[in-house]
Amino acid sequence: MAGLKLYGVNQSTNVMRALVCLYEKGLDFEFVSVDMYSGEHKKDPFISFNPFGQVPVLEDGDIQIFESRAITEHLCRAYTEKGPTLLPSDKKALASVLTWKEVEAGQFNVPASKLAFELFYKSFLFGGTADEAVMAEHEERLAKVLDVYEVRLSKNNYLGGDEYSLADLNHLPCLHFLVGTPVKKIFDSRPHVSKWCTDALARPAWAKVVAMIVV
Amino acid sequence: MAGLKLYGVNQSTNVMRALVCLYEKGLDFEFVSVDMYSGEHKKDPFISFNPFGQVPVLEDGDIQIFESRAITEHLCRAYTEKGPTLLPSDKKALASVLTWKEVEAGQFNVPASKLAFELFYKSFLFGGTADEAVMAEHEERLAKVLDVYEVRLSKNNYLGGDEYSLADLNHLPCLHFLVGTPVKKIFDSRPHVSKWCTDALARPAWAKVVAMIVV
Repeated sequence: MAGLKLYGVNQSTNVMRALVCLYEKGLDFEFVSVDMYSGEHKKDPFISFNPFGQVPVLEDGDIQIFESRAITEHLCRAYTEKGPTLLPSDKKALASVLTWKEVEAGQFNVPASKLAFELFYKSFLFGGTADEAVMAEHEERLAKVLDVYEVRLSKNNYLGGDEYSLADLNHLPCLHFLVGTPVKKIFDSRPHVSKWCTDALARPAWAKVVAMIVV
Repeated sequence: MAGLKLYGVNQSTNVMRALVCLYEKGLDFEFVSVDMYSGEHKKDPFISFNPFGQVPVLEDGDIQIFESRAITEHLCRAYTEKGPTLLPSDKKALASVLTWKEVEAGQFNVPASKLAFELFYKSFLFGGTADEAVMAEHEERLAKVLDVYEVRLSKNNYLGGDEYSLADLNHLPCLHFLVGTPVKKIFDSRPHVSKWCTDALARPAWAKVVAMIVV
């Protein structure tokens, strides 16, 4: 096993995405806290790992990777023999997982992370006030995405197909925060989405991430 | 060779992303025009291919895929023996391509596609006026991304490494439109970015897409 080190902070949804994948695959790793309050992420050596100065960064032996969705895909491809098959090898099954993985990144993520910021991070962590107009716009946008998910999940147990995959896993951090806010109603009102959400959040790998969250 | 069909319109940057990958891999395919003006993309059968009602959709035998970046990744993984190796098999090289592929989707795409819309689509195609405040915000954001690219490209021929890869290819449609607008200056002022841009746009696969563009 190569030495795996994840650099980040345990308040970041992007770091949580990488963490839950490491736990799901059952990989041993070291978590290295980055002191963002003192700007450590904008200085050497961190800035040489990720020139955008953002967390997380994964070190896997002599490989350095950033962008959380690149990290989770790397872990699935580099450690196929460990844990569940989150990226199937069958061409048809893989195409479906790739599609729904991009749906998370391209359709779900913007409204979901914006709502998580307004309702959780901004309100609870930074002592600000949620912007009602921004929330209304993104709640409407997320509801439309979840309408599509509801139909999809009425036919398949998970987004990529009948098996849990990277397409579901990448959603977890935002799901976790949103079901703790009033936005939970747009998940609850869609029975298949609600069941999918409950199932995904009940996975032992996610419980390990929750135990690390300090916000 | 399975029957490959790409559904779309030749004015869409997302469709162009799938097209350039098909041409780069040297794959035979049929291009099926979707009449978006009459709302064909929001009706059956198209809506059953992509429940979000968006182009492109790729049909590859009995496989249907949507989201342009899922399509390009599928083509690279399903047709490894055809054309250049846009997704390397070496673990370290692949990790780098996956990282910079996500940088395109997560950092470059929003400001670049917003600027392409304001400066090209909105102004030339829909007869509207570019929003100066939106443009200034996104030009500043894109310039910061290109600062990182400039350093990266001073050390490597391409974003993923020394070989052209999917990380570069996914940028092409927005690059094409932006270098035809005043935003070209933020590319020209960075010599390594400028060279990279010229090299990528000069590829024969891109010339084949340009020949199809009707806007």
